[in-house]
Amino acid sequence: MYKISIIGATGYVGLELARLLCGHGGVKIEHLFTTSAEGQQLDALYPSLRGAGLPPLETYSKEAALSSDLVFTALPHGAGGGVIPELYRAGGRVIDMSADYRLNDIAVYEQWYKSPHPCPEINGDAVYGLCELYRDRIKPTRLAANPGCYTSCAILACAPLMKSGLIDIHSIIIDAASGVSGAGRSLSQGMHFTEAHETYKAYGVTTHRHTPEIEQELSLAAGEPVYVTFTPHLLPVKRGILSTIYVNLKDGVTQEQLMEVYTEKYADEPFITLYPKGELPELKHVNGSNRCAIGFAIDKRTGRAIIVSALDNLVKGAAGAGVQNMNLMLGMPETQGLTAPAWYL
Amino acid sequence: MYKISIIGATGYVGLELARLLCGHGGVKIEHLFTTSAEGQQLDALYPSLRGAGLPPLETYSKEAALSSDLVFTALPHGAGGGVIPELYRAGGRVIDMSADYRLNDIAVYEQWYKSPHPCPEINGDAVYGLCELYRDRIKPTRLAANPGCYTSCAILACAPLMKSGLIDIHSIIIDAASGVSGAGRSLSQGMHFTEAHETYKAYGVTTHRHTPEIEQELSLAAGEPVYVTFTPHLLPVKRGILSTIYVNLKDGVTQEQLMEVYTEKYADEPFITLYPKGELPELKHVNGSNRCAIGFAIDKRTGRAIIVSALDNLVKGAAGAGVQNMNLMLGMPETQGLTAPAWYL
Amino acid sequence: MYKISIIGATGYVGLELARLLCGHGGVKIEHLFTTSAEGQQLDALYPSLRGAGLPPLETYSKEAALSSDLVFTALPHGAGGGVIPELYRAGGRVIDMSADYRLNDIAVYEQWYKSPHPCPEINGDAVYGLCELYRDRIKPTRLAANPGCYTSCAILACAPLMKSGLIDIHSIIIDAASGVSGAGRSLSQGMHFTEAHETYKAYGVTTHRHTPEIEQELSLAAGEPVYVTFTPHLLPVKRGILSTIYVNLKDGVTQEQLMEVYTEKYADEPFITLYPKGELPELKHVNGSNRCAIGFAIDKRTGRAIIVSALDNLVKGAAGAGVQNMNLMLGMPETQGLTAPAWYL
Amino acid sequence: MYKISIIGATGYVGLELARLLCGHGGVKIEHLFTTSAEGQQLDALYPSLRGAGLPPLETYSKEAALSSDLVFTALPHGAGGGVIPELYRAGGRVIDMSADYRLNDIAVYEQWYKSPHPCPEINGDAVYGLCELYRDRIKPTRLAANPGCYTSCAILACAPLMKSGLIDIHSIIIDAASGVSGAGRSLSQGMHFTEAHETYKAYGVTTHRHTPEIEQELSLAAGEPVYVTFTPHLLPVKRGILSTIYVNLKDGVTQEQLMEVYTEKYADEPFITLYPKGELPELKHVNGSNRCAIGFAIDKRTGRAIIVSALDNLVKGAAGAGVQNMNLMLGMPETQGLTAPAWYL
Repeated sequence: MYKISIIGATGYVGLELARLLCGHGGVKIEHLFTTSAEGQQLDALYPSLRGAGLPPLETYSKEAALSSDLVFTALPHGAGGGVIPELYRAGGRVIDMSADYRLNDIAVYEQWYKSPHPCPEINGDAVYGLCELYRDRIKPTRLAANPGCYTSCAILACAPLMKSGLIDIHSIIIDAASGVSGAGRSLSQGMHFTEAHETYKAYGVTTHRHTPEIEQELSLAAGEPVYVTFTPHLLPVKRGILSTIYVNLKDGVTQEQLMEVYTEKYADEPFITLYPKGELPELKHVNGSNRCAIGFAIDKRTGRAIIVSALDNLVKGAAGAGVQNMNLMLGMPETQGLTAPAWYL
Repeated sequence: MYKISIIGATGYVGLELARLLCGHGGVKIEHLFTTSAEGQQLDALYPSLRGAGLPPLETYSKEAALSSDLVFTALPHGAGGGVIPELYRAGGRVIDMSADYRLNDIAVYEQWYKSPHPCPEINGDAVYGLCELYRDRIKPTRLAANPGCYTSCAILACAPLMKSGLIDIHSIIIDAASGVSGAGRSLSQGMHFTEAHETYKAYGVTTHRHTPEIEQELSLAAGEPVYVTFTPHLLPVKRGILSTIYVNLKDGVTQEQLMEVYTEKYADEPFITLYPKGELPELKHVNGSNRCAIGFAIDKRTGRAIIVSALDNLVKGAAGAGVQNMNLMLGMPETQGLTAPAWYL
Repeated sequence: MYKISIIGATGYVGLELARLLCGHGGVKIEHLFTTSAEGQQLDALYPSLRGAGLPPLETYSKEAALSSDLVFTALPHGAGGGVIPELYRAGGRVIDMSADYRLNDIAVYEQWYKSPHPCPEINGDAVYGLCELYRDRIKPTRLAANPGCYTSCAILACAPLMKSGLIDIHSIIIDAASGVSGAGRSLSQGMHFTEAHETYKAYGVTTHRHTPEIEQELSLAAGEPVYVTFTPHLLPVKRGILSTIYVNLKDGVTQEQLMEVYTEKYADEPFITLYPKGELPELKHVNGSNRCAIGFAIDKRTGRAIIVSALDNLVKGAAGAGVQNMNLMLGMPETQGLTAPAWYL
Repeated sequence: MYKISIIGATGYVGLELARLLCGHGGVKIEHLFTTSAEGQQLDALYPSLRGAGLPPLETYSKEAALSSDLVFTALPHGAGGGVIPELYRAGGRVIDMSADYRLNDIAVYEQWYKSPHPCPEINGDAVYGLCELYRDRIKPTRLAANPGCYTSCAILACAPLMKSGLIDIHSIIIDAASGVSGAGRSLSQGMHFTEAHETYKAYGVTTHRHTPEIEQELSLAAGEPVYVTFTPHLLPVKRGILSTIYVNLKDGVTQEQLMEVYTEKYADEPFITLYPKGELPELKHVNGSNRCAIGFAIDKRTGRAIIVSALDNLVKGAAGAGVQNMNLMLGMPETQGLTAPAWYL
């Protein structure tokens, strides 16, 4: 059994990592580090974990963390500034759940996150942890940057098309909607039940920080700079992201041609579900699972394709992708601990 | 007090008309016609109406209906095929809540609704009942076609721009989301609580019947044919529609230029709320009210505007618009009975 | 037009008072006082109020408040300690929405609220503002203590039975469930969307502060001390309280006997809806309205009655009851501004 | 690997059995029988199951069913009338998810279900499949009657007290609330999203069919006839049941005495979580898991205990309990496939 530690264990990503790792079979959670609840049990915050045999929450120590085979850092961006370089340089394996090591260009990070990068020196060592794109580079790395939730949903839907020649790669519009857990456990007025229930809104319009992450990966996939319009919305649900993506098609492109491109890319992917013509994913098809479901329709009248992708923001969009990276980095089967079907109900 | 009848009173539009007319002050509901629940009280179906003093549900009779000053027909499309022409030809005033008289081109109706038009002979007499566009033509008409819910939300957001010269009118993409009441009271698997709660999906992609209605009005506003991509989604809320609309801007167009266009069109409109720069509407800002709220942002990086409009699908998107039409047709103040603020909570 | 001020206008009770008073017709909101958002507009917090013509939020001044005909204080318990006595002693009319003047016995207040009473000297002058019980005493008072939400729902359901001789008055168990707006606008972990949605819990079991208020009024109605078991629950809805109340019946008591007691008490009450045998209230029957709906069933097998009552915690349970009190205190018709039917959808 | 068949696979219990058995590890689903969707795939109805490798839906055949080691019947009550006796008599192992074999007294069944019992001859052979009470009798049986959802939640909370001498066993009142999935997949007006969302109601008051099942088991536990008042409510959530149970305590009974009784009974139970003093279960603590969580408080003022129990109606209240029974009947570890923590979010 590999030994795992989680730094920043009390947030929702920490909770979800704990939930998934409990049933993994190949790993054991050895340390749960926190700065807010030392000495408590995680199951006092989340009684759903009672009986799971987790260690107590404790104050971070480098030595304790390094005694693990792999460390998840589930901290707000910037907050892992000291810890991650320290563990990485000491030879530790780290999967960072924050945005800190996702962007290749430090200047882009500092522009969108409006603060200095916590450790530019090791940024280049980090591998973007989207297994479907970077499987081979993730296996040997000791520093994986786990992707964002909106970004995984959008990138997985668009990446196959970027070099296909079937679309205008400069026409991409991503209209996405997320459940409230995407905002995390911290309190804010807009995430109060009475303010978030029975309503719906766009937010972060033209300014959301997942934009440059999507653009980085789609540009790499295209081999040239790509800019997108990305509009997130807040849904009155706990979990799940659905992206409705609009692209202009080259003349005469058919449903079958698009499907061929997707099939070639994803036919063997264990966590991608392609939907046949006439069917599109919903949140309830993926919530609770590590799957990203993708379907599309062609609007012949306007020459556009409408691509719909869905995933659970806490699983394939965060903790599940983290476990998938962990499996690769520790040499376990990629799907171990991640095969539970979605909940539907 | 004007006398009002409602045909098809037991559906959600009938309920909402009854709710609004109870507090109107200038009208009295004289007849509630139904084909499904004769002899019952409407408040047996909807106990929220107990104490409102409504007449019993009864079987339709032409004479009874014509004794009213105005008749609302709240029937499924096609179902008013006999009744509406009969009342209209006998001199009655009719506001049809269905789609039957909304489309100027019979062929377009028959293509999208896949059935013969119920009465092509009187279709040309009907006025499209969107008061903000056709106020002067609605006042004298005896046949108003109350607009669709998605369509009102999209048309009010886009119409001012169509002749502005500020946008590419062929680039319009309307991504919209509606509460479940938009599907009406009839049962279907997808509207079952367990199937519609805690999820989100696109539906009717490239095929939704509100598409030609939007295109008709935007084409009329533009003075040339316009086609749009329209993608509706189902939200796990009872009420409300939010449209997120993407348009390509002409080079250099600013937030201020767009605002000027909207202000010129809507400054005096009692039911349009324009949002200042940096603010966008949410469902909870409009639900329960007869308002349509409109805001927008400019994405300089991609040269697009993102316009967000919101309304309550049952009020400004249906029964409230119907009352607004009724006020105009009967010579009452346009805002009478419609000034209640939105509920927020 | 009477002039009205609201102190503590930015909370949900303030919002709901503003919403109801906008359409009242007999009053005008002159001052909105706040300690947290001076100089802002209330509609910046609650855009649903845009266009309602409200005055700006301002810092409290005694003189400004006294220029109004009536002042609502919508502050947390204890927080009106200085303001209410000051206004009352200067001759102002005050409706206090907090718990401070609801309990006749200062010792009981201090035991349950665990702090000194803000002004014992004027406590005896306050009238408990439940119009259905104290209409005649409310009309002339200048200090009304608006009842609690759970308490109104429970008291209205039980009070008629207390002297009926039909029940064991010492067997009352009140199992109640409330929407999240009952907890107000302040943030707390348990009211975060992700923590309150798709779940249900009991809270404040054996310790909720509405218990002594219910007991006071039921004891007064009975003419002897009565103690109840009161268990509140948190529902994943915005609005509404439903109480399911269990009482042991005296031998042989029938549905008809109970109905006779209720009818005698409530037949002429404008805001009480009695349900016929076989029907019971739901939240959607009352939400948005000022009604309290009451129904019941008899369990012959166990000799108990199950009484179900429902109201909107923000309307009949707070702001609506406040407006009802205001109408009585200012000599307007009791139902003015309060006749809107419930929303159902 | 044991071979399993499910008869009535397309309902929510069938879905949930499929979801749980996919990850069980010791069994393989061999046949999925249906009367409504032959030839389809179950994952066409429930796309969450895509990739799970399930067999196609097929028409029931006795031979195919008997080729399995165990058959789940997930049919409405009465509908398994022919199938269950046939399989049982032919030597098959059956777990019936319906109510047909839960009641020992045929007359009680016929009184509450208002139809003849489908097979009185084998009713006496069935074991009530609540493992915590009847573990030893379930292991050897070939016919287990899987308990009801409300009933499991209530019985597990009350059974330990029945012979404790600490309570008045004739004072039990069970106020329970369930998510909408408890009503199954069939459509009905009250379970329509727009009718069930943002509301709350009591239903089946004094008449719910789970009443005699609760009474049977509590009477057996007490050794004398016990009658209860049971009031179910409908919650606007997908899953979960919470029971708030009121009992009169014998004089002077303490929290510690009650806890001792529960601890003695449940200390070693793998799926019962006892909550310490001051804590009570919520739905989100158990949903998705096979756990029943139980806590309680004592109301000294009124001499009552308030016991709160919670479980997921589809797991511990249905499919999970079914798998627990299956594990016992096939000689596998009782907890196999059932150890996933609750979801919390």
